[in-house]
Amino acid sequence: MNILIEGIDILTGDPKTEYIGNAHIGIKDDKIEFIAAASEMPVDFKADRVISGRNRIAMPGLVNAHTHCAMTIMRNAADDLPLHKWLFEKIFPIEVRLTDEDVYWGTRLGAAEMIKSGTVAIADMYLHMDAAAKGILDTGLKVNLSVSPLEFHSEDGELKVRDLFDDCRRYFHEWNGREDGRIKVYIEVHSTYLFDLASLKRSSELAGDLGTGIHIHLLETGKERKESFYKYGKSPVDICVETGIFDVPVIGAHLVHVSEDDISLLKKYGVSAAHNPTSNLKLGSGISPVKQMLDAGVNVALGTDGAASNNNLDMFEEMHLAALIHKGVGYDPERVTARQAFRMATANGAKAVGFGADSGIIRAGMKADLILLDMDKPHLCPVNDPYSAIAYSAQSSDVDTVIVDGNILMEKRELKTIDEERVMYEVNRISQKLLNA
Amino acid sequence: MNILIEGIDILTGDPKTEYIGNAHIGIKDDKIEFIAAASEMPVDFKADRVISGRNRIAMPGLVNAHTHCAMTIMRNAADDLPLHKWLFEKIFPIEVRLTDEDVYWGTRLGAAEMIKSGTVAIADMYLHMDAAAKGILDTGLKVNLSVSPLEFHSEDGELKVRDLFDDCRRYFHEWNGREDGRIKVYIEVHSTYLFDLASLKRSSELAGDLGTGIHIHLLETGKERKESFYKYGKSPVDICVETGIFDVPVIGAHLVHVSEDDISLLKKYGVSAAHNPTSNLKLGSGISPVKQMLDAGVNVALGTDGAASNNNLDMFEEMHLAALIHKGVGYDPERVTARQAFRMATANGAKAVGFGADSGIIRAGMKADLILLDMDKPHLCPVNDPYSAIAYSAQSSDVDTVIVDGNILMEKRELKTIDEERVMYEVNRISQKLLNA
Repeated sequence: MNILIEGIDILTGDPKTEYIGNAHIGIKDDKIEFIAAASEMPVDFKADRVISGRNRIAMPGLVNAHTHCAMTIMRNAADDLPLHKWLFEKIFPIEVRLTDEDVYWGTRLGAAEMIKSGTVAIADMYLHMDAAAKGILDTGLKVNLSVSPLEFHSEDGELKVRDLFDDCRRYFHEWNGREDGRIKVYIEVHSTYLFDLASLKRSSELAGDLGTGIHIHLLETGKERKESFYKYGKSPVDICVETGIFDVPVIGAHLVHVSEDDISLLKKYGVSAAHNPTSNLKLGSGISPVKQMLDAGVNVALGTDGAASNNNLDMFEEMHLAALIHKGVGYDPERVTARQAFRMATANGAKAVGFGADSGIIRAGMKADLILLDMDKPHLCPVNDPYSAIAYSAQSSDVDTVIVDGNILMEKRELKTIDEERVMYEVNRISQKLLNA
Repeated sequence: MNILIEGIDILTGDPKTEYIGNAHIGIKDDKIEFIAAASEMPVDFKADRVISGRNRIAMPGLVNAHTHCAMTIMRNAADDLPLHKWLFEKIFPIEVRLTDEDVYWGTRLGAAEMIKSGTVAIADMYLHMDAAAKGILDTGLKVNLSVSPLEFHSEDGELKVRDLFDDCRRYFHEWNGREDGRIKVYIEVHSTYLFDLASLKRSSELAGDLGTGIHIHLLETGKERKESFYKYGKSPVDICVETGIFDVPVIGAHLVHVSEDDISLLKKYGVSAAHNPTSNLKLGSGISPVKQMLDAGVNVALGTDGAASNNNLDMFEEMHLAALIHKGVGYDPERVTARQAFRMATANGAKAVGFGADSGIIRAGMKADLILLDMDKPHLCPVNDPYSAIAYSAQSSDVDTVIVDGNILMEKRELKTIDEERVMYEVNRISQKLLNA
C-alpha cells in the first residue's frame, strides 16, 4: 500500500537534517519513498491512502529495548516493597503458575499498550516464549524475542536448572525472520549470577552458531556487582568478555552499577545499553551513569522493564525521565539533552534491538517506522523547540497514528491489529485468577 | 445544581476510608452531600445531572502548590542550559517585555492545561498579577494568587527595587475572596536573597495585618544556601523565623537544600513544602529530602513550577516522579509510597494552598472538588491496587471529568469554562512576538 502524509513537520532523528517543516512523506509498501516539499513531489506517486499532517508532527517510532511484556498481568500488584520481598514473595509465586494462555494474553495487552504509546519495536524477554511469540506475531510490531537455554525453578528450596539448549535452536528456527523479518530471536542469558561460566560460554557459542545476539541483565544492583567480585574477583562485564558473550550483538539491560573500566569494555565490544530509568528508580536500584556512557560512545537505548516494576510500558515517560534525572542527580542542567533522550528512545533503540540498519530515523530509503503526534493540545502550546516539546512536554496519549513497515497499526488512536476490549477482558480474568490463587 | 455520580469506585484520599467500591456520590451545590451504596441513597435527592461511574475512578482533584502560570508562553523556549544562562539570557529578557495581555493569555492557557490534567487548585506566583487574576477568575479553579510588595528590575546593570507595599493591600482587597472564596491572595516574597531583612519583616507584617499567608522560594539551590551562610551566617529558614515570615501560613517552594535543623523549624512553624521534582531535576538543582520531611511531619505538597522549567503543568507527572525518584536516589523501594505521593498531590496540596479545611479528600460535607478518570485503557489494566494505578500507571489524559465546588469544568475532556482553541491561538501569537523580538 502507498501512503501519502501531506504537509507535516518532521523530527527526522537524523543528525544531518534534524527537522523538516511542512513536507510530504511518501510511503511505498514498507519503505519511505520520499520526503519532499509539495511542489517537488514525484509526479508518478499514486497514494492509496492520504493522511493530513495538519497540527501533527512525524517522528521515528519509539523502541522499547528491554521489557517483559506479559508482566502486564501483574501490573500494580506488588509495589513499594524491598526487592527481595517483591521478587520472592510476590512475583516468583505468580510466575510458577503462569500458563501459555496467560503469557499469550499478557503479551498481547503489552503490545496494545505499547502501540497506543507510540512504540514500534521492542526487545521482549520472558517465560513461555512460544506463547509470547504467538501473542505478538500479528500485531505488526517489530519484536526481538529472547529465549533462554536454561530454565530455573526451585524444588524444596533448592535451585534446579533445566537444560534447554536444543529447544533454543528449535525456537530460533521456528520464529526468527517471520513476518517479513519483523520477528527476531536472540538468546536470553538472564545474568552472570544465574548462569555459571560453562553455561555462559555455551550460550555465547549458541548465539554465534545461530548468527544472532544475546539479551542479558547486567549490573542492575550494587549487590550484583559486589557478589561478582566476591565470587570471581571481577565485574560481570569482565565475565561477559571472558565467556564470549560480548562477541555477538548484545543488549545489556540496566547497567546501573558500572565502572569506568566496564564502560570502556561496553564501548570496545559494541554492547548496547538498555537504560530503564523508571524501573531502576522504583526498585531502588540506583541511577545509571548514562552521561558517562554516552560520552564514551556507548549506544544507550531506553526500556520500560516489565509492568510489575514500572507500572506501565510508556516510552514517552522513559524518554522524559532520561532527560530529567541525570541533570538532577549530577547538578548539571546540560546533562542528557532533549535531543540525546530522543535519540536514545528512537535510533539508538532500533540499533540495540537489531533493526537499526534500516529503522530508527525518518529518511528516504528507510523502513516506514514512524508515528504521528497530535500537537493541537494546550500542554504542547507553544511548541517552540519541537525536540524539547517531545522530550519534556508530550505524553504518550498525544500519539495519534503508528506505522510500522508501512502498515498502519493505529489511526486516530484506534488499534488496527488488536481487539483492545477483548485483550483487557482476558487479562482482567487471568490476573484475578493468578492473584487470588 | 445537584449532580449524582452513579456506581463509581472512589479513592477518597481519606486515611480512614481510603477506598469505597461501587458507590453513589451526591453533590448538592458546592458540597458532597453523601456517599452511599445504591440501596442506601437518600430518597429525597433530586439530581439535575447524572454521571455514570462505569469504568471510572473518582479521586480528589490535584493541587499544584507552586507554579508560574503565565510562563506557558515560554514553553520549550530555553532548555538544557545552565541556570544562570537560562535565567539571565533567556527568561529575564523576555519577562521585561511582558504585557498585561501576555500574562492574561499565558495564565489562561496554563489554566486550560491544568484543568485538562485534573488539577482543581493552584498557587500561582508571577508578574502582572492583576492580569493573571483576570485570566483565571472565571475558569472555576481555586487559585491562590501571590503578589509581591517589591518589584525588581535592572537599570544599567544595577538592580533597582520599587516599593509596592501599598499596591499589595489594594490587590488583596480587590481580589481576595472573589468567586465564592475560590480566589485567595497571599503575599509573594520572592526569596531571602532578593528581599533584605527589613523587607522580609515588612512583608511578614503586611501578611499578618491582612490575615493572609506568604508564598516564598526557599533553598532551591546549593548556591542559595551557601550565600545565605556567607551573608548572614545562617540558613534562609533561620532568616524566615527571625523576620516573622513563618508566623503566617507559608508555602515554601522547593526546599531542596534543607538541613535537619531546617526541617525541624518547618515542622515547628507549620510551613508547607511545595516539592517540584521535575523542575528541580531539569534545572540541575538536586533532590529534595522529601522522605525526611514527611517523616518529620512536614506537610509536603507538589508543584510543577513554571512551564519554562518543566515543560508542562502536569500534576500526574509530579506525583509519578515523587513516588519514583526518592526510591532511586535513596536505594530504598519503600521510600515515598504510592499513597504518600497521592496524598502529597491532593490533601497536602489543598492544605498548602489554603483550601485544606474543606477540600482535598472525598467525604460527605467537603467541597465537591474531584476528578473522574477513565480506567478503560490498556495501560490501566489490570487495576489491582488503585492507588498504585494512579501514582505509577495513570497519565493526565486519563482524566475525563473535573468538578470544582460542584461546577463541572471539564466533561469527556471538553473544557466548559475556557475556549481552548482561542487560548492556543493567542498564546502562539504572543510567544512568536516575544521570542522573535
